Amino acid sequence: MKTDKIRIAILGYGNIGCAAEAAIKAAPDMKLTGIHHHNDDINKIQADVVLLGTPTREVQHYAEKLLQKGISVIDSFDIHTQIYALRQSLKPIAEAHKAVSIISAGWDPGTDSMIRALLQAMAPNGITYTNFGPGRSMGHTVAAKAIKGVKDALSMTIPLGTGVHRRMVYVELEKNAKFSQVEKALLKDDYFAHDETHVIQVPSIKELNNVAHGVLLERYGVSGDTHNQRFEFKMEINNPALTAQIMTACARAAYRMCKHKHYGAFTLIEIPPIALLPGDEETNIKALV
Amino acid sequence: MKTDKIRIAILGYGNIGCAAEAAIKAAPDMKLTGIHHHNDDINKIQADVVLLGTPTREVQHYAEKLLQKGISVIDSFDIHTQIYALRQSLKPIAEAHKAVSIISAGWDPGTDSMIRALLQAMAPNGITYTNFGPGRSMGHTVAAKAIKGVKDALSMTIPLGTGVHRRMVYVELEKNAKFSQVEKALLKDDYFAHDETHVIQVPSIKELNNVAHGVLLERYGVSGDTHNQRFEFKMEINNPALTAQIMTACARAAYRMCKHKHYGAFTLIEIPPIALLPGDEETNIKALV
Repeated sequence: MKTDKIRIAILGYGNIGCAAEAAIKAAPDMKLTGIHHHNDDINKIQADVVLLGTPTREVQHYAEKLLQKGISVIDSFDIHTQIYALRQSLKPIAEAHKAVSIISAGWDPGTDSMIRALLQAMAPNGITYTNFGPGRSMGHTVAAKAIKGVKDALSMTIPLGTGVHRRMVYVELEKNAKFSQVEKALLKDDYFAHDETHVIQVPSIKELNNVAHGVLLERYGVSGDTHNQRFEFKMEINNPALTAQIMTACARAAYRMCKHKHYGAFTLIEIPPIALLPGDEETNIKALV
Repeated sequence: MKTDKIRIAILGYGNIGCAAEAAIKAAPDMKLTGIHHHNDDINKIQADVVLLGTPTREVQHYAEKLLQKGISVIDSFDIHTQIYALRQSLKPIAEAHKAVSIISAGWDPGTDSMIRALLQAMAPNGITYTNFGPGRSMGHTVAAKAIKGVKDALSMTIPLGTGVHRRMVYVELEKNAKFSQVEKALLKDDYFAHDETHVIQVPSIKELNNVAHGVLLERYGVSGDTHNQRFEFKMEINNPALTAQIMTACARAAYRMCKHKHYGAFTLIEIPPIALLPGDEETNIKALV
């Protein structure tokens, strides 16, 4: 059966946008119809689905504009506490314009959320630990850069188990800045005050750059009345490549949901895994079940 | 919001049925309305959803009967090569009688299938290895029991990595049977001829009994054009307790699908994770995403 390819455009061309380009080109059922910068005219976008590679805080703005034009949108919005509000605000817009928005479509939030939901269904009582890293924390890196005397910084998240993390903060100082003062200010900052934090002075941050990341999800729980059910999910990955790949898979799901008139805004735990895969359903069921 | 509890019955009361009883009783949104033996009158079953604890080869028979009465059914049918055919045969019956059948709703096939689908979406090129055990293999145990001179047997599956398995076969012999002959016959059997197999004579199988099992799913793959993406999913679990818990979660999903008039027969990769969890959607999205 010959089907038309899904027309995908990228808005925002940083780490994620660049990785998305590779993921779309590798997909057998997709056609890349454009790469747009954040200040381009949005009316020029010709696509069934747009992948947003813009900063998280600009997601809502662009998602609304695209949904209003009836174009489906995928983002990797990553502020956990604001995901539900984003979903609720995009949902009526998507419904009104017959489009689909899949939000927070990265690995955490995203596929990790699917695994957490699944583990909770498999062992309803128990604790899930999410251990991030080793990998760069964007939020902590920005906080470190804001300290007086810091020219550039990198904050690495190191997993210590049971959801506890160490912060390894590398700093490149401004001329005449004193390390002991920078260290003191950083350790008092609310971003770092609650975790074990080490501050290390380096001549240049640039050489430390690396987009590797990872996670270890652990759950020990109870199925029925049976305790000691043990689960682990572990990844060691290139962060933007995985995020962009998941967004690309979600573009496929959004396209299919539109075909089925299933409009609205959705998080990944609301999507069946089969919707993420290329090819026809029957073949995938035979191969994967 | 007060909602009516989902009425669940169990048909078949072996390992799975017994564990299902515990899972249903532990569920906040369910009411156990009956435990039925395979020769009971099926017309006496009062339930929204029935969990089938019958042997795999009887699943189709009972599922058809229940669906024809408009009762949704969950099974843990585990013959991988026949799952698709079972789905296709139950689908029109479920649709005609406004019911839902979720098939092969255990851990493999089942939740492992969901993870495999997810990993394939996250890294479309690559290989997934499914390593089972240590744990009892039902099929191999039955094959060992069928060897002449074997009174009782237990075949354990031991994972050697990259999907290769060792078989540790414990045999209790009939009086006057010769171990060397039993060993020779067993090693020639098609179930064992292709794997590293060790045959061990024991005085009694009963003391070796243990329902522990496990799996390690591994995938090394490519996201976009980025290689070396590494994923692992590992479980160490009580087998019937986990199977029954997954079936119970699927009963909830089936009940909800009926409410949304989404009738038919489905495998787990067609179900969104959120449908498996008790409680309202909004709360679960806030907690898990």
